[in-house]
Amino acid sequence: DQIREYARNIIEKEIQRHAADGLGMVDYALASGGGKVMRHSEPFGKVTGSGSWLTNRNKAHADAAKMLRPSFGEPGQCFPLKGSSGFVQIKLRTAIIPEAVTLEHVAKSVAYDRSSAPKHCRVSGWLQGQDLTNPVIDTEKMFLLTEFTYDLDKSSAQTFNVLDSEASPVVDTIRLDFTSNHGSSSHTCIYRLRVHGKEPNSVSMMAMQS
Amino acid sequence: DQIREYARNIIEKEIQRHAADGLGMVDYALASGGGKVMRHSEPFGKVTGSGSWLTNRNKAHADAAKMLRPSFGEPGQCFPLKGSSGFVQIKLRTAIIPEAVTLEHVAKSVAYDRSSAPKHCRVSGWLQGQDLTNPVIDTEKMFLLTEFTYDLDKSSAQTFNVLDSEASPVVDTIRLDFTSNHGSSSHTCIYRLRVHGKEPNSVSMMAMQS
Amino acid sequence: DQIREYARNIIEKEIQRHAADGLGMVDYALASGGGKVMRHSEPFGKVTGSGSWLTNRNKAHADAAKMLRPSFGEPGQCFPLKGSSGFVQIKLRTAIIPEAVTLEHVAKSVAYDRSSAPKHCRVSGWLQGQDLTNPVIDTEKMFLLTEFTYDLDKSSAQTFNVLDSEASPVVDTIRLDFTSNHGSSSHTCIYRLRVHGKEPNSVSMMAMQS
Ligand SMILES: [K+]
Ligand SMILES: [K+]
Ligand SMILES: [K+]
Repeated sequence: DQIREYARNIIEKEIQRHAADGLGMVDYALASGGGKVMRHSEPFGKVTGSGSWLTNRNKAHADAAKMLRPSFGEPGQCFPLKGSSGFVQIKLRTAIIPEAVTLEHVAKSVAYDRSSAPKHCRVSGWLQGQDLTNPVIDTEKMFLLTEFTYDLDKSSAQTFNVLDSEASPVVDTIRLDFTSNHGSSSHTCIYRLRVHGKEPNSVSMMAMQS
Repeated sequence: DQIREYARNIIEKEIQRHAADGLGMVDYALASGGGKVMRHSEPFGKVTGSGSWLTNRNKAHADAAKMLRPSFGEPGQCFPLKGSSGFVQIKLRTAIIPEAVTLEHVAKSVAYDRSSAPKHCRVSGWLQGQDLTNPVIDTEKMFLLTEFTYDLDKSSAQTFNVLDSEASPVVDTIRLDFTSNHGSSSHTCIYRLRVHGKEPNSVSMMAMQS
Repeated sequence: DQIREYARNIIEKEIQRHAADGLGMVDYALASGGGKVMRHSEPFGKVTGSGSWLTNRNKAHADAAKMLRPSFGEPGQCFPLKGSSGFVQIKLRTAIIPEAVTLEHVAKSVAYDRSSAPKHCRVSGWLQGQDLTNPVIDTEKMFLLTEFTYDLDKSSAQTFNVLDSEASPVVDTIRLDFTSNHGSSSHTCIYRLRVHGKEPNSVSMMAMQS
């Protein structure tokens, strides 16, 4: 009976975690929470309305927001970028002290082919503030949050801690650069990118932004 | 081995329940099942197309149906109403003998802020029938189904039984009134409202409607 | 402690399988993966834009793709066909050696009524290739993959193996014929149809198509 109670408890806890966006961690990049894709490298293939992207390279493609939405374990719910390297730049819903990022690809068991998964990645962050006139920022402002390798043998959503969260500045924008993928020469698919952390209290924020 | 078998059984059962809309209970307010938001108090903020609401207060906002759809543990999949009190009026897919209602807010672990959750609530019901010319009904027709407090420390979907289900009339319309929320002075978010019960047999229905 | 470890392991595995489209099996009919409904018998009721179907019986209804998308345990996320018998013809994302098909209806615990579930079914397959000018094919080209009865007492997603997978030709199109349903005289609802199998290597494909 004690074992039954124990088993039931962890089952309920695990299902609750699963129901809470799979990880049970707040995501400041989530589209429905206010996250926005600001820029990205060249999209792949006949993505709907890609003409608008070609004529305005500083604007994100309409489908790019797929990267900031749950995939529900469905193949194809991703945004494809051309080639085996590229980048994605995301404005968070609010400024945070970043603690971790999660990169998600489609689950192994339902995927047709996972050669388009990103491999070597680095994520940087900075405080963009309201200055949206020039979305291209000084690289000196960028702070390296983490470098990692997405591993096809691990679970589909992989979380990587910020290297030195104590030292991290408050950021409202992050950029994922992938320098390789898992074999596709034509494109790399980003299923979902999440950014975790905590909101600084307003007083310290004022000081930082002034 | 017996323990393994037992553990596997409850796991399968719990996952099945989770897969069945989280609760495994029929929802007569579900949008994809024919439920409709008929009226609501003033929406909050720059909701898309809110102009149409302002010019026609007896019509529901296009986004209001979000309250009758699954949220999948995603912040933002709600309909925001102005202030800390307000109401929502819902036409069910069919007339039922109501047994319980479920109010759902976003899960604690993925929420940015839960001060917009409703707190003190009461749910009433009545039989509106085909008379849609005047969506504002006589309060004397309304039957109190349940009064409750949404508790931020409990699971995100909270089910409340109808006070006296035996005495309840057959209803096809329900109204949720919230008189307070969990701290936000600007708005209250309704993630999802479900209505459970059983369909009366057709003979008894005829008698009631005539 | 050993029991705890064991329990935790199977819970994680079962949740992973649930998160991977419920079954953890690749679906070559999935809409987001490139599957398409090519033809179907007469749709039921006031489906949006059904006029276009009536004037062009060789084209699928815009809503027909619902049959190739996850339902997330939600009633109504199906495509309704007129009567108690009918068919659906699907072009797979790519040519495969078919191994199984899964027919899914809404879960018992959240359904209003399951009399519209298909009952006696047969699934055939063939290689259509690029010849889309005549979507109606010679019946002699069709290969019977499986015959089955959808059982309302079993789990909502039911998988049936191909009768003789070794003997099966490579197929890129399948057709579900249902000859009865679970009681509704007006319509039959298809929630989701999945097709499982393996991709032949390209060399053997070339030989088959030439
Ligand atoms: K996605
Ligand atoms: K919702
Ligand atoms: K579906």
